[in-house]
Amino acid sequence: MYKRIPTHIGIIPDGNRRWAQKQGLEKKDGYSYGISPGFSLYEIMIAMGVKEATFYGFTKDNNKRAPEQRDAFTKACVEAVVTLAGRDANLLVIGNTDSPAFPPELLPYANQRVRFGQGLINLNFLVNYDWQWDLGSALSCGHIASYDIPRIDLIIRWGGCRRLSGFLPVQSVYSDIYIVEDYWPDFDPAHFHAAMDWYQNCDVTLGG
Amino acid sequence: MYKRIPTHIGIIPDGNRRWAQKQGLEKKDGYSYGISPGFSLYEIMIAMGVKEATFYGFTKDNNKRAPEQRDAFTKACVEAVVTLAGRDANLLVIGNTDSPAFPPELLPYANQRVRFGQGLINLNFLVNYDWQWDLGSALSCGHIASYDIPRIDLIIRWGGCRRLSGFLPVQSVYSDIYIVEDYWPDFDPAHFHAAMDWYQNCDVTLGG
Repeated sequence: MYKRIPTHIGIIPDGNRRWAQKQGLEKKDGYSYGISPGFSLYEIMIAMGVKEATFYGFTKDNNKRAPEQRDAFTKACVEAVVTLAGRDANLLVIGNTDSPAFPPELLPYANQRVRFGQGLINLNFLVNYDWQWDLGSALSCGHIASYDIPRIDLIIRWGGCRRLSGFLPVQSVYSDIYIVEDYWPDFDPAHFHAAMDWYQNCDVTLGG
Repeated sequence: MYKRIPTHIGIIPDGNRRWAQKQGLEKKDGYSYGISPGFSLYEIMIAMGVKEATFYGFTKDNNKRAPEQRDAFTKACVEAVVTLAGRDANLLVIGNTDSPAFPPELLPYANQRVRFGQGLINLNFLVNYDWQWDLGSALSCGHIASYDIPRIDLIIRWGGCRRLSGFLPVQSVYSDIYIVEDYWPDFDPAHFHAAMDWYQNCDVTLGG
């Protein structure tokens, strides 16, 4: 179907709060509607032969939001992992665990890859991630905190903003970036296929 | 005219080689046509009150290209600086000077800001830049090599590719990224104004 399949895809599932407001819900209520789209995308990526995907969960910066929003996005991340445990992926959670904002339920998956079922895809999940913490770890540990996550070929961001918002600065240096205008809870497989169609014609040069 | 003026703009002037081929020229001949657009943009940014701009000159990766292309883009960078010396900017060249690929003519401006004329804008120029060298300097020097370059608000890339190609990973983490489909030698002030129009409606959240 596609001649070029990205080995590693980055997913920035933005727009949950704007989606909730559009529905007449409170901002915090948007996050729980972001779980099901993630699993739709997971199925599509496995079917297509994508080897690895990294989802942007939440960041240290996001913790500046209202407490009820923090609770809601943290809960959504935990629920996503609980659901994933019944599927077929190799999960790696990357984030600063030395902070009360890191959900203790996810500690077993932090900084070590855990296999679920047949392990059909490597799934990385950024939870309480902080780009400064990630890069700064090089000073204390000799390598960035996310060194187990390889270079990303294609980043797809939902919600219309054309920026990376601190998403894995090192792994993103050569990534092609595709923006979906729709909000993440309005995920449609057509968004992904449009990104893949576009990606077919991106020339990989790595600057050479 | 605009209610939001980005403090610091990043410029990725891509498409010189594709432009040259379209004109029936050799690839290497495109670079010299990239100097004049830079000065047109320089004038526009000063008139608009932009305080700082960073131009992507060439990278370590670019040095993998054919020798005649290397000669041509290096010469274009040197010529740009010679011309700038007669204008009104504070120039800072950032790049790995411990390499024969760094043009010796630009050593006086490397890693120190030099004032030309009235110094109306801070201009940073990445010459023989290498993102791995930049970040890796933190291990040897305690700070990234480009630490004198602040956060970038808006990145404008010409030539249609939607990626950063190693452009200042740390300063780009929150940047809004605008892509111009036209090649850089076909620069038109309307490109810049379209980017500014778009930027007016980008919500700055820094993740919060």
